[in-house]
Amino acid sequence: MEYRRLGRSGLKVSALSFGSWVTYSNQLDGKQARECMAAARDAGVNFFDNAEGYAAGESERLMGQALRDLRWTREHYVVSSKFFWGLSDDPNVRHTLNRKYLLSAVDNSLKRFGLDYLDLIFCHRPDPNTPIEETVWAMHDIINRGKALYWGTSEWSAGQIRTAWDIAERHHLHKPVMEQPQYNLFVRQRVEQEFATLYADIGLGLTVWSPLASGALTGKYLAGIPKDSRGALKGYEWLHERLLDEKRTAAVRALKPIADELGCTLSQLAIAWCLRNPHVSTVITGASRAAQVVENMKALDVLPKLDDALAARMDAACAGAIDAL
Amino acid sequence: MEYRRLGRSGLKVSALSFGSWVTYSNQLDGKQARECMAAARDAGVNFFDNAEGYAAGESERLMGQALRDLRWTREHYVVSSKFFWGLSDDPNVRHTLNRKYLLSAVDNSLKRFGLDYLDLIFCHRPDPNTPIEETVWAMHDIINRGKALYWGTSEWSAGQIRTAWDIAERHHLHKPVMEQPQYNLFVRQRVEQEFATLYADIGLGLTVWSPLASGALTGKYLAGIPKDSRGALKGYEWLHERLLDEKRTAAVRALKPIADELGCTLSQLAIAWCLRNPHVSTVITGASRAAQVVENMKALDVLPKLDDALAARMDAACAGAIDAL
Amino acid sequence: MEYRRLGRSGLKVSALSFGSWVTYSNQLDGKQARECMAAARDAGVNFFDNAEGYAAGESERLMGQALRDLRWTREHYVVSSKFFWGLSDDPNVRHTLNRKYLLSAVDNSLKRFGLDYLDLIFCHRPDPNTPIEETVWAMHDIINRGKALYWGTSEWSAGQIRTAWDIAERHHLHKPVMEQPQYNLFVRQRVEQEFATLYADIGLGLTVWSPLASGALTGKYLAGIPKDSRGALKGYEWLHERLLDEKRTAAVRALKPIADELGCTLSQLAIAWCLRNPHVSTVITGASRAAQVVENMKALDVLPKLDDALAARMDAACAGAIDAL
Amino acid sequence: MEYRRLGRSGLKVSALSFGSWVTYSNQLDGKQARECMAAARDAGVNFFDNAEGYAAGESERLMGQALRDLRWTREHYVVSSKFFWGLSDDPNVRHTLNRKYLLSAVDNSLKRFGLDYLDLIFCHRPDPNTPIEETVWAMHDIINRGKALYWGTSEWSAGQIRTAWDIAERHHLHKPVMEQPQYNLFVRQRVEQEFATLYADIGLGLTVWSPLASGALTGKYLAGIPKDSRGALKGYEWLHERLLDEKRTAAVRALKPIADELGCTLSQLAIAWCLRNPHVSTVITGASRAAQVVENMKALDVLPKLDDALAARMDAACAGAIDAL
Repeated sequence: MEYRRLGRSGLKVSALSFGSWVTYSNQLDGKQARECMAAARDAGVNFFDNAEGYAAGESERLMGQALRDLRWTREHYVVSSKFFWGLSDDPNVRHTLNRKYLLSAVDNSLKRFGLDYLDLIFCHRPDPNTPIEETVWAMHDIINRGKALYWGTSEWSAGQIRTAWDIAERHHLHKPVMEQPQYNLFVRQRVEQEFATLYADIGLGLTVWSPLASGALTGKYLAGIPKDSRGALKGYEWLHERLLDEKRTAAVRALKPIADELGCTLSQLAIAWCLRNPHVSTVITGASRAAQVVENMKALDVLPKLDDALAARMDAACAGAIDAL
Repeated sequence: MEYRRLGRSGLKVSALSFGSWVTYSNQLDGKQARECMAAARDAGVNFFDNAEGYAAGESERLMGQALRDLRWTREHYVVSSKFFWGLSDDPNVRHTLNRKYLLSAVDNSLKRFGLDYLDLIFCHRPDPNTPIEETVWAMHDIINRGKALYWGTSEWSAGQIRTAWDIAERHHLHKPVMEQPQYNLFVRQRVEQEFATLYADIGLGLTVWSPLASGALTGKYLAGIPKDSRGALKGYEWLHERLLDEKRTAAVRALKPIADELGCTLSQLAIAWCLRNPHVSTVITGASRAAQVVENMKALDVLPKLDDALAARMDAACAGAIDAL
Repeated sequence: MEYRRLGRSGLKVSALSFGSWVTYSNQLDGKQARECMAAARDAGVNFFDNAEGYAAGESERLMGQALRDLRWTREHYVVSSKFFWGLSDDPNVRHTLNRKYLLSAVDNSLKRFGLDYLDLIFCHRPDPNTPIEETVWAMHDIINRGKALYWGTSEWSAGQIRTAWDIAERHHLHKPVMEQPQYNLFVRQRVEQEFATLYADIGLGLTVWSPLASGALTGKYLAGIPKDSRGALKGYEWLHERLLDEKRTAAVRALKPIADELGCTLSQLAIAWCLRNPHVSTVITGASRAAQVVENMKALDVLPKLDDALAARMDAACAGAIDAL
Repeated sequence: MEYRRLGRSGLKVSALSFGSWVTYSNQLDGKQARECMAAARDAGVNFFDNAEGYAAGESERLMGQALRDLRWTREHYVVSSKFFWGLSDDPNVRHTLNRKYLLSAVDNSLKRFGLDYLDLIFCHRPDPNTPIEETVWAMHDIINRGKALYWGTSEWSAGQIRTAWDIAERHHLHKPVMEQPQYNLFVRQRVEQEFATLYADIGLGLTVWSPLASGALTGKYLAGIPKDSRGALKGYEWLHERLLDEKRTAAVRALKPIADELGCTLSQLAIAWCLRNPHVSTVITGASRAAQVVENMKALDVLPKLDDALAARMDAACAGAIDAL
């Protein structure tokens, strides 16, 4: 496994990490979760991404149980949670980053996990209805109380991240260290353009999600939505349009020969492509079976073969399918 | 229910809230308190205002018991207390905002409530004998120790609030977020004029009290002081003059036709009028019976009908009865 | 009793307070200590001064026991300790204000007192071998951890106090609030001259000690050292020279007619004189019998009679006996 | 024993201190450790140096047990640990000063020692892969939580130390107080030249290690590596070259007559030479037998005899053997 610094911080995360979004609870039971995490650990994965909102808290419970079952030394793994969506419709719980919500959300998350502290906590989305200063103070206080080690954001704009960092610098508070943006061959403008100055200026690290564009880059949906795929799950109808998008499917077809040349799957190619970006600290992958974890990890073997010429061919293949900022 | 941000903060409070001043203990027992709070909760009220000094601590005890009886999730309600008057004549307890008093007052309040933390704490009046810096530090330390989430002031001048905010900004301490001023058709100069620059400059929020001018705006006192009214309570003789003030009773009589036109009570009209002010985060209402709570809440239905023309007629009706700053 | 603000702070201390130096343990047992403190409390005294070094910790133990015996509400009294001399010869205990010493000294003092927190803590003397910044940080941390409420100095120079205040302002730490200097008719230059700018600039409060110049101002030593006086105690031989100093005894003889005119004792006159200084927050008095406490308190009745003309006569009486700075 | 301030701080450390590197666990059992520490204590030593990495944690356990066995008052001794090497190969444990590692490393160290707090904690080496700001914050938080009293560095460059100090000053955090460099007749450039401005500018204190250059300055290795010496221990083969270095052995031979003139051993002469440097707060010595401790302490008797002329002769003797910076 390759380990990368989380941005400018001293924390080392495995270049490939394991996220529990969707797959836990909805599709996974405790045994499968433990097997996936054991496979990930055996492959050298040390970062496990989670969020309060994944499966309404059940994902944190399953992961906490699996960590205990695996008898893993606390110092050796990095676990995250994210806060914003909230687990009820209350105006101070749903869609907020206010102090009241954040302080209890972390306590509740720790209880579900059965942990004393989280390694990383993320503001899961920006909240236009809470001043960034209030959120920065709450994040600082959580870290100051020993309940988390580092904090960051997810799907914030460059301006919002910079504002948070500046407030923390001015008031001598713990600064945001990382951002969790979507990043894949189709969605790349924010990471490559909008965030450009943040890497050098504030040392932003990235824990990117959706390397396979919700599965579109697996090639699984080239002939429609298979019955046993995530796209066919109840509640995921909103994904159909993007999964079957014509420009995207054309791009996937154009990528296939490159994967074949490298002797890898489309998924491995897409994941390896994310890893080429030096600002990416880790690519979060998902899996519902241990074998799938092992498959994903092979992207690391693809990485050294993915030279500039091949990357240029991949860019050309996707040219028409890249989302505007 | 409409929810508003508490000033610039991310905390959402119900536009109408429930205060326990006077009504608790003096007039209410535990069962009535619980019924009033249940009715308020059912109407969507999430903010419950209290103070150490209300019924000498008994008000906090009753409210704490009611919250437990209602088995309400802690994250879903916002509860306040206020400190300044003190519960004994000791020179470091009576009429002070010094560090010694504030630190033990909060602990004592939490014990009476049976809570781990308060959401809002107020400096109940300014204390000319304690430097504002000392009070700001004490408020910060209370929040830093997790015993409260936000702090503010009550009946402070614009200059005092601004001084507190500036000290907090300079020393990187938690800033005051809200002020609790008297605000009603008769008492409005401070909110509308003196505080004017504070809304944009520091994002001050208002939790206003006395929307009915101690009952004068209910119309109840037009023909003198009824025997079963608060004005007739022992210890409230000081209210008589204001309740029976000629200019005020004339104004109330002039407001009556407007209420009739809108098909609402004078009280509902007066409360709705307060809500028109966008700087008002919440209007604190009182009640000694659940039915009264329900009545008060109907002010929310009046609000959309209260257009600029009607508001101008209300201003005209009260013109002679508005207190000078 | 008159209560005065402790300098610019909001804490109110009784103009006359009770100190346990010398009298405890050496001369007093638990019963006498309790009786003296009860008499002081009955007279309205709310500040009880102490130090780690008084009777090697025994003074704190006796005072803590007396406070428990008197079942006094914690909010209603103000208790102090002081640190510097240390209770052993260890280089990090004896004569130091370093972080290591201060942090454990406070813990040890709280254990002896049986208290959760001290109201005031003093740096008992300046320590030229510890940077003032280290001492300020330790004082701040002690207050921040809730083990004390305010901190100050004793027998520090104006420059040292100002340096401590400036460091605290620059690093956003709790500032020194009070100084405990010697102050009496013979020793007054520091309080009246050296500290002059500190009162307005930083709001320094004074808790002055030795209002009777170790007893010289009682008149007790005019005819030598009586066998039952403190001056005759073993270990106080160093006092003899000052107690029998010719210029001082001449001054005491010249003050006697003024005391007689006012119908008070020399002690009461000397204590009242200290209280005339508006920068004095409290005058610390000692006593080994309850009756003596009552006697001392009568200085408060003398104060209003001590007009400028009488004070000028007192100055003249002492003119030759005032210590140089 | 002579006690020196740890740099500009108020902490006093014995000029000679006792370090447990190598000797503990590898060569020492619990009884020997206790005897060595008892001998050191009897000689007035109050500083005991340790590190997480010494004998993989066993050194801290043995020292903690010895301190308990000796029933030593906590205030009277100063104990250190150091963090960087880590006790496993995990990327967030091995060779790092990141927040995650430091916070748990201190907790683990306290558990091994059986102590509530450490006096001194050192960053055992600089970590180019963690921003100094992250390390400074972690050190501050550890001190702020009461788990250590002072922090410093070991084998950092002047620029790195200064950077850490500046960050702490800017963000109002606890500053580094001391550095633990190698310092002896052969390795002196950093202490004497590179650090020169730090003594006055930031008041850096030094706790120097290896006063005998891994034993070379004992004269023990003049005729090769004796079988019972540390140089013959398994795992210390890397030392051989330096121990047998020709220029060094020539220097040792040239120092011998000076030691003879002073009537002391070569070791005592080398240790005394370190103590001549006023920036050295303490020289850390090692021993595996109590008698050796006693021998080392005699360096203090040599110190007053070591005048400038003799020191110049020592410089001349070593001239060819001094390491370049």
